Amino acid sequence: MDTTHTFEFLSLDPSFGLWNASNLGEGVIVGVIDSGVWPESESFKDDRMEKKLPLKWKGTCEEGEEFNASMCNLKLIGARYFNKGLVAAKPNVTIKMNSPRDYDGHGTHTSSTVAGNYVHGANFFGYAKGVARGIAPRARVAMYKVSWEEGRQASDILAGMDQAIGDGVDVISASMGLDKVPLYEDSIAIASFAAMEKGIVVSSSAGNEGPKLGTLHNGIPWVINVAASSIDRTFGSLVLGNGETIIGWTLFAADAIVQDLQLVYHDTLSACNSSHMLREVVAATSDGIIICKASDSISVFDQINLVTMTNVKGAVFVSDDPEIIEWGHLYSPSIVITFKDAKSVINYTQSNKNPKASINFQQTFIGIKPSPVAARYSSRGPSPSFPWILKPDIMAPGTRVLAAYIPHKTTATIGTNVFLSSHYNIQSGTSMACPHISAVAALLKAARPEWGVAAIKSAIMTTANFLDNTENLIRDNANPNEFASPLAIGAGEIDPNRALDPGLVYDATPQDYVNLLCGLNYSYDQILTITRSRSYDCSNPSLDLNYPSFIVFYSKESESVIHKFRRTVTNVGEGGATYRVKVREPMGSMVTVLPNILVFKDKNEKQSYEVHIIYMKKDNESNNNVSFGDIVWVEDGGKHTVRSPIVVAPNGIV
Amino acid sequence: MDTTHTFEFLSLDPSFGLWNASNLGEGVIVGVIDSGVWPESESFKDDRMEKKLPLKWKGTCEEGEEFNASMCNLKLIGARYFNKGLVAAKPNVTIKMNSPRDYDGHGTHTSSTVAGNYVHGANFFGYAKGVARGIAPRARVAMYKVSWEEGRQASDILAGMDQAIGDGVDVISASMGLDKVPLYEDSIAIASFAAMEKGIVVSSSAGNEGPKLGTLHNGIPWVINVAASSIDRTFGSLVLGNGETIIGWTLFAADAIVQDLQLVYHDTLSACNSSHMLREVVAATSDGIIICKASDSISVFDQINLVTMTNVKGAVFVSDDPEIIEWGHLYSPSIVITFKDAKSVINYTQSNKNPKASINFQQTFIGIKPSPVAARYSSRGPSPSFPWILKPDIMAPGTRVLAAYIPHKTTATIGTNVFLSSHYNIQSGTSMACPHISAVAALLKAARPEWGVAAIKSAIMTTANFLDNTENLIRDNANPNEFASPLAIGAGEIDPNRALDPGLVYDATPQDYVNLLCGLNYSYDQILTITRSRSYDCSNPSLDLNYPSFIVFYSKESESVIHKFRRTVTNVGEGGATYRVKVREPMGSMVTVLPNILVFKDKNEKQSYEVHIIYMKKDNESNNNVSFGDIVWVEDGGKHTVRSPIVVAPNGIV
Repeated sequence: MDTTHTFEFLSLDPSFGLWNASNLGEGVIVGVIDSGVWPESESFKDDRMEKKLPLKWKGTCEEGEEFNASMCNLKLIGARYFNKGLVAAKPNVTIKMNSPRDYDGHGTHTSSTVAGNYVHGANFFGYAKGVARGIAPRARVAMYKVSWEEGRQASDILAGMDQAIGDGVDVISASMGLDKVPLYEDSIAIASFAAMEKGIVVSSSAGNEGPKLGTLHNGIPWVINVAASSIDRTFGSLVLGNGETIIGWTLFAADAIVQDLQLVYHDTLSACNSSHMLREVVAATSDGIIICKASDSISVFDQINLVTMTNVKGAVFVSDDPEIIEWGHLYSPSIVITFKDAKSVINYTQSNKNPKASINFQQTFIGIKPSPVAARYSSRGPSPSFPWILKPDIMAPGTRVLAAYIPHKTTATIGTNVFLSSHYNIQSGTSMACPHISAVAALLKAARPEWGVAAIKSAIMTTANFLDNTENLIRDNANPNEFASPLAIGAGEIDPNRALDPGLVYDATPQDYVNLLCGLNYSYDQILTITRSRSYDCSNPSLDLNYPSFIVFYSKESESVIHKFRRTVTNVGEGGATYRVKVREPMGSMVTVLPNILVFKDKNEKQSYEVHIIYMKKDNESNNNVSFGDIVWVEDGGKHTVRSPIVVAPNGIV
Repeated sequence: MDTTHTFEFLSLDPSFGLWNASNLGEGVIVGVIDSGVWPESESFKDDRMEKKLPLKWKGTCEEGEEFNASMCNLKLIGARYFNKGLVAAKPNVTIKMNSPRDYDGHGTHTSSTVAGNYVHGANFFGYAKGVARGIAPRARVAMYKVSWEEGRQASDILAGMDQAIGDGVDVISASMGLDKVPLYEDSIAIASFAAMEKGIVVSSSAGNEGPKLGTLHNGIPWVINVAASSIDRTFGSLVLGNGETIIGWTLFAADAIVQDLQLVYHDTLSACNSSHMLREVVAATSDGIIICKASDSISVFDQINLVTMTNVKGAVFVSDDPEIIEWGHLYSPSIVITFKDAKSVINYTQSNKNPKASINFQQTFIGIKPSPVAARYSSRGPSPSFPWILKPDIMAPGTRVLAAYIPHKTTATIGTNVFLSSHYNIQSGTSMACPHISAVAALLKAARPEWGVAAIKSAIMTTANFLDNTENLIRDNANPNEFASPLAIGAGEIDPNRALDPGLVYDATPQDYVNLLCGLNYSYDQILTITRSRSYDCSNPSLDLNYPSFIVFYSKESESVIHKFRRTVTNVGEGGATYRVKVREPMGSMVTVLPNILVFKDKNEKQSYEVHIIYMKKDNESNNNVSFGDIVWVEDGGKHTVRSPIVVAPNGIV
């Protein structure tokens, strides 16, 4: 079982597909905009890295507190730090770690997820044990520290990203975002425009403000916006005295012995709403495992804290709440199981005179279904800063991702007083998803050096998986009974090997993005803030960018809406090909595609088509209905399918 | 830093000395009489073991509960179990693990100490981390399980040892003993007589009933009796805010973060005699490390338990009590320091407005002085069953020895409710010392196949270290201000490389041992019980065995005692040699050696000498005075020194 299992979950394999075609990302440089890096981490060793640095590289290893130039190597090829903005904003600030060194853990986690080297035996307190590696294991990393314990300033982000561009990176990974700012005040939007002009892909995180719609940040047309999914992995099991094994989840930070203990289910005590009462359970059943039943009167988080204070030998919590799985930690020897499993456990305790159970820690299970599932926390589109382009663009593994960490920070707690750190940490967030896409972009850069920023994004999006490992549409943890909308998952879960060979791509030039800005009521100065160049013009303002997805808004007042899009696709497959369209209409909408056949005689040939989407509100329909579908161009003979999601949503949700 | 550091402490190295001469024990079989073995332990993998088993081997891999024949291999070449005696004694007993499988951990620990294979990364919760290995890493192990959770019967020990002899082992390691039995009722004495007749060395533990004199078991003339010492290793440190680092000891089972916390020393609270009061400390100084001062009114053990219940973030205990170091465990993030160090710590807290400290766990320090020190718990001679031969014979590392363990048993506790197990365990006892000597005997068997049982024992004893790593006489943990008497340490700490080349040996035949028995008032039947043969006679009864040590008893009534010994030494050095005697007289005694020069012309030549020891009681002397000295034969030119300890002790202490 391999750690940073996400590479496996994404079917990356050195013997075929994207890893093979890209030589694991060799020759590509990823600039990570984050909180710094822990250079001593095993993940940044440079064993087996190509000796010669890319010629274009102009970066440096900036010295500072507890950081000297020799800490960079053939893997971590550069490291800089930016806090002039912070110092200007807080003149009296004393900066704790005034260097590229990570004092938070976040930057070490994200940068090792992008391009960490192979590390045997990596694990988080025995969980997810195996060989860690980044998604682009042979790519180079350069760290641009802009995020500080003392705060983070937009101007420092801009300085860091500008420097990364100047240093010659191929991809920028920014697991951060600025909320509630228009594009012309969003330093990530501004810096990434310059990156885009130079062919540098910028991948950024959607944010962790889900599941409310319109919470997303980095909704920037020329950036890849990444949502977070679960993966098919869980940890720990509960084994009943009758031999039944229930796979639950726990990351309790020790292999505690909880074997063949009495399993206690009691109408009153199992409320687990009083540490006093629980202590009595412990006293009465000195070796018991208490089942804490789910209840409306106390949250599982509170139960977990109360149980921790009782020093009970084992506990079983019951929850279907994805927040528990995505963010929760357990501080006493315990495990969380689902409502469904809880029924069978409670039934066992009630039908048995001497019910017993064991909890097994430090176990890792893969193949869990369904997965991927959209993470509840993942911020949802539409983008407040630019709703007319569907965001997020893509989803990638973000929940319980194992990657390198700083070795002195608490990553787990036992009881109330034992604080533990670890060289690897399991973390959740769109910050963990973003570097997966940054790495895939880096791999595509290596395998397809001729592709521009828009082509890479298009390849990533049109080949994404919209089905989970049960072959059904991907579900949404915020509402497990429903399928996830593209406002949660964009085009779907990244499928790196398919992205290598998308068949068709939707391309765009810098001027195309400027046309978008001109289509808004931005002033010339505001546009200039973004473009930082007078070489663009506003002669063709248009909100209809050549983008591989579609979003239509209807107003609550009007009865219907008709929206036309025009798209141009470029044939990047080998030689000629004929594509026929297949449409899944959003509920309540009619979608027409003209023409419905595209015939390409040669590679790199372009063809255009129009999409008409007509939404008609029904009488009994609520005003907040979001519906979705897709347009798929299917190649005759079947090798390529080029899919674009469609969303129809009420306006006013951002 | 290498785990099972004892090999290093004993200066074993593959490139010279005993490891080199014995090829790490290749070709030798050690039978371990114990609680069984965990065959899946990494220590019993057979990588790099000679493919061909010794021809003499007639043992087997006996099947039983959770144990099949395929579990033996080229390292663990045999495994049997013996409980007929137990079943006869307790007809209704249900035996839990009716097979050679270890259900206790003891046998896995001792057998891997003897001959465990090389295991990378072995450690006990991060302590003593390194490459584990046995003291005879290429020797074979055969396990004879005679010790059961349900009890242990002398008849099963006898059956197991007899089987080991029959199977063809070279050495028997018995980390167990029978208390308060005469030799003819002591199954270890009986079985080991047969072993001795066949040239099989039996090494056994002195027991853990020290420091009281006369508590030793296995005081058997034809067996090697092993006392336990400390080694030069400790774990953990306390770092004060002023930068001072104090090496203490802790085996707290997690790398808890206790960094830069307030260090609290308070006249009342630091008594640490009330968990209620301590909780108030925790509440008042939410991030504090409490110093628990030593006191007559509460033991450190009780302080440790009280502090565990308070969930305090850090604690410092103060103790010079060797029992803490030898047996203690800590259940909360804490460390023990000495009185001397405590003074400086308390002084720091009192002279500083904002005293802070950190506790570092999972640290291993070696080179600690003084060491070895006789362990307090190690049982002391004289031997109740046969006081006229000085016992113990030898001392070996026994305190905090890391070796393999069974993986499901609690070896550490965090707080009051988190129980942890480990594949390797740090344990203390003469049971841990004994396998060190068994292994050295095995190495000598491989290197010196011509030597008999008495020669091997003599080589081990006469070359032992009587100085510690400060070049002073070895001290006694039971009374750190005094030097250890041979009743605690025998000839001293094993020095394997010197044992390879002792110069002279004191040999003995089976008849010599029978002569001893005849010298007692044993009946013929009693002697027959031991010898199990009518081929011996009692024509030369004598209590003066040709043994490499001397013990003289004085009675409380008489004013003086004179004792004569006769010894014969065999020159096992290369060619001729001249030895001159050097005597350190026990306080109050006169020792005369005749002749005082021994001249050997050839190898294997024998020479005899007499020792007269005259003890004269002084008027003001207590009746319980034990004094000690030695006789050392020093070779001209200096290569060999052959040392025998002398003890003068009052009778009636056993």
